[in-house]
Amino acid sequence: MTTAARLMHLGAFLMETGHHVAAWRHPDVQADAGTDFRAYAALASMAERACFDAIFVADSVAANVDDSATRAARSDRLDPLTLLPALAAVTARIGLIATATTTYNEPYHLARKFASLDHISGGRAGWNLVTSDNAAEARNFGRTEHVGHAERYARAREFHRVVTGLWDSWADDSFVRDKASGAYYDAATLRVLNHDGPHFSVAGPLNVPRPVQGWPVVVQAGASDAGRDLAAQTADVVFTAHARLDSAQAFYRDMKARAVAAGRAPGDLKIMPGLSVVVARTDDEARERFDALQALVDPVAGVAMLARMLGNFDLSGYPLDGPLPELPLTDSGQRSRQALLTALAGDERLTIRELVLRIAAGRGHVTVVGSATTVADLMQTWFESDAADGFNVMPAELPAGLDAFCSLVVPELQRRGLFRTAYTGRTLREHLGLQRPVRA
Amino acid sequence: MTTAARLMHLGAFLMETGHHVAAWRHPDVQADAGTDFRAYAALASMAERACFDAIFVADSVAANVDDSATRAARSDRLDPLTLLPALAAVTARIGLIATATTTYNEPYHLARKFASLDHISGGRAGWNLVTSDNAAEARNFGRTEHVGHAERYARAREFHRVVTGLWDSWADDSFVRDKASGAYYDAATLRVLNHDGPHFSVAGPLNVPRPVQGWPVVVQAGASDAGRDLAAQTADVVFTAHARLDSAQAFYRDMKARAVAAGRAPGDLKIMPGLSVVVARTDDEARERFDALQALVDPVAGVAMLARMLGNFDLSGYPLDGPLPELPLTDSGQRSRQALLTALAGDERLTIRELVLRIAAGRGHVTVVGSATTVADLMQTWFESDAADGFNVMPAELPAGLDAFCSLVVPELQRRGLFRTAYTGRTLREHLGLQRPVRA
Repeated sequence: MTTAARLMHLGAFLMETGHHVAAWRHPDVQADAGTDFRAYAALASMAERACFDAIFVADSVAANVDDSATRAARSDRLDPLTLLPALAAVTARIGLIATATTTYNEPYHLARKFASLDHISGGRAGWNLVTSDNAAEARNFGRTEHVGHAERYARAREFHRVVTGLWDSWADDSFVRDKASGAYYDAATLRVLNHDGPHFSVAGPLNVPRPVQGWPVVVQAGASDAGRDLAAQTADVVFTAHARLDSAQAFYRDMKARAVAAGRAPGDLKIMPGLSVVVARTDDEARERFDALQALVDPVAGVAMLARMLGNFDLSGYPLDGPLPELPLTDSGQRSRQALLTALAGDERLTIRELVLRIAAGRGHVTVVGSATTVADLMQTWFESDAADGFNVMPAELPAGLDAFCSLVVPELQRRGLFRTAYTGRTLREHLGLQRPVRA
Repeated sequence: MTTAARLMHLGAFLMETGHHVAAWRHPDVQADAGTDFRAYAALASMAERACFDAIFVADSVAANVDDSATRAARSDRLDPLTLLPALAAVTARIGLIATATTTYNEPYHLARKFASLDHISGGRAGWNLVTSDNAAEARNFGRTEHVGHAERYARAREFHRVVTGLWDSWADDSFVRDKASGAYYDAATLRVLNHDGPHFSVAGPLNVPRPVQGWPVVVQAGASDAGRDLAAQTADVVFTAHARLDSAQAFYRDMKARAVAAGRAPGDLKIMPGLSVVVARTDDEARERFDALQALVDPVAGVAMLARMLGNFDLSGYPLDGPLPELPLTDSGQRSRQALLTALAGDERLTIRELVLRIAAGRGHVTVVGSATTVADLMQTWFESDAADGFNVMPAELPAGLDAFCSLVVPELQRRGLFRTAYTGRTLREHLGLQRPVRA
């Protein structure tokens, strides 16, 4: 491999027992792994041995307890910003990306927590900056309804400005700690933020030194116009959902163009689609594993998941073996996912049951089932045809699905010269090939 | 030692480079230890080898950056709720107590974080529930002044009710995760909180299973009448500051009586005064270590610390070698500390400089300087004369001060039958001899 080779970036998206809606029912799966730290520690170590750029953990600030939830493993999880510091202590090189919402947090708290995680991990922290779009979350924070789309994004933008301003409270060398003179920090280099905006009034400075990475890596997943603009201006990595190559290519082109329009280089913004994957030694064996998971899908749980992804419309009155009804455009954050799924159902004339099974593993992300060659072929095609700078890998079931990816697909990607064989950097920014922000 | 022996409880109060205001300047001290995870990990392991009940970490949601702060090591630290999960991963038995304010947090977030820490640590989480009383913190959360005393305590009380209600969202056996039937949880045992009060409206349920300890241990340190009542009704442990035995005894009697009045047994509430300590092989050697630290005190930093503890009065206009001026009663949360320090200065006719030196190590907590015998004698006296159920140990400098305590004082306490020689419990509640809360 020459030094000039462009390498793929890989995130391990760890979702409790696995991404497949029925994973927890699989005989190989530990059903309570979603709240078992040791299970997470084993997964993080596994991904680190395979040289993944990062692990990635989703979040929600509410339990899903509608009637169907009793049949789905999505009501309990660990807080990502409590889990990832613990994983930092048992890993050495892999990045640690936690989801945290701007809608129901205070920027001072999140700035501190990510700065602290960055220090504890030696520069491996990443923040998946999201907005919250559902009523269940709103009701845990003194509201009766979720915050509207435009308002959420205005708040998110200001939130990001405050957090990055707080990260820059101190210069990299502010803390001189000179024992002889008694000078602990150099006041001339201190910057008090004194932010006063429509959503936040935050004086600062942060009570944590400047993060090891300058700024922890910022990940976003917004697909709306406002979400894309915010990401193009402020994100380092965009996590995105596409079922097909052409859609991923269009998104990739659009995001790189928006980044350039925002005065950035295309390489400053890494595009990482989700990749739902079931891999085994042969295509047939992978298909058998996938079919075994599909056979465990509970229709009630599956339809409820579909309904949430379409924007919380009630589908219980429609026959499972009939078509998806026409739905009004959702006002929730699921608008782009709704469009993706509606198009998928229309293009292929899927019944509700077929659509549920189609998204059971990947929730609309491209799903590949096959041998290492099959999986690597798809990844290489997307990577080499301007659809992806890497992938957020979504194993259908854990830990076996991640283990199979690490032992089968990673070596294949390495043979093809598409993925690192050892870490060359120390920080998540270095893994991703991103500049360390200079304090302006 | 018989099984009936009453044993002392010990917390290791880890304050950055040590509790002495000049500790960071000592030649043996790593000046940047306050933001170095490895330094904390070494301290936690040291305390665990000595069978401490817990480590204890303070907090503030603001940096101290007044003019004097450039000369004091109190402007940078790690977020406790990010630090302690990482320490959970590198320890096995010791309790982990994080300070978190009720004034500028949301109960859903804190309930989740402590529940997650409790799961990650196998039942070792503790929450030092505090209120925030200063303007610097207020200005980081959209306010111009700090919240008044009565309002802070009303909010704290409601905050505690919401958090404990969220911890009880699920029964201990709600998550049945029955692979055969597809039932993930038992909806009949779920309790949706639907709290709607003056400060918070929180629907719940929590998206984390019931904590290992039922409820993580709750610690409080309020000394006002409202603070004492709240602690007597809701705390498991009270951390408290006393310079003299008689004051500690009066507090101990008062708190046990208030607990009984609240319908609890006296043993349900553990009273743990802070113990500022410098120990060495002989009294003379300890005095030399202490004197070396005292010689490093910067008057500017020392007077500023004193001023904060008196309620943020400006002392810069008063001569260092003159008496403490008469001060109006502070409206801040420092009222009891102000009373303690004013009495100390008056009783012993101390100058400002002498008072600064008197509190340089312990900020008003009893300070003992001497051999293991000297230290153990004081601890035994307080423990056996209704002044303390244990101590929150405050080493003057770290790591040497904690190391000396563990290698000299702990064996002496063990020889006297006053402290455990091995952990007998798994959880922090078990270490402290506290019942696991039954879900009502």
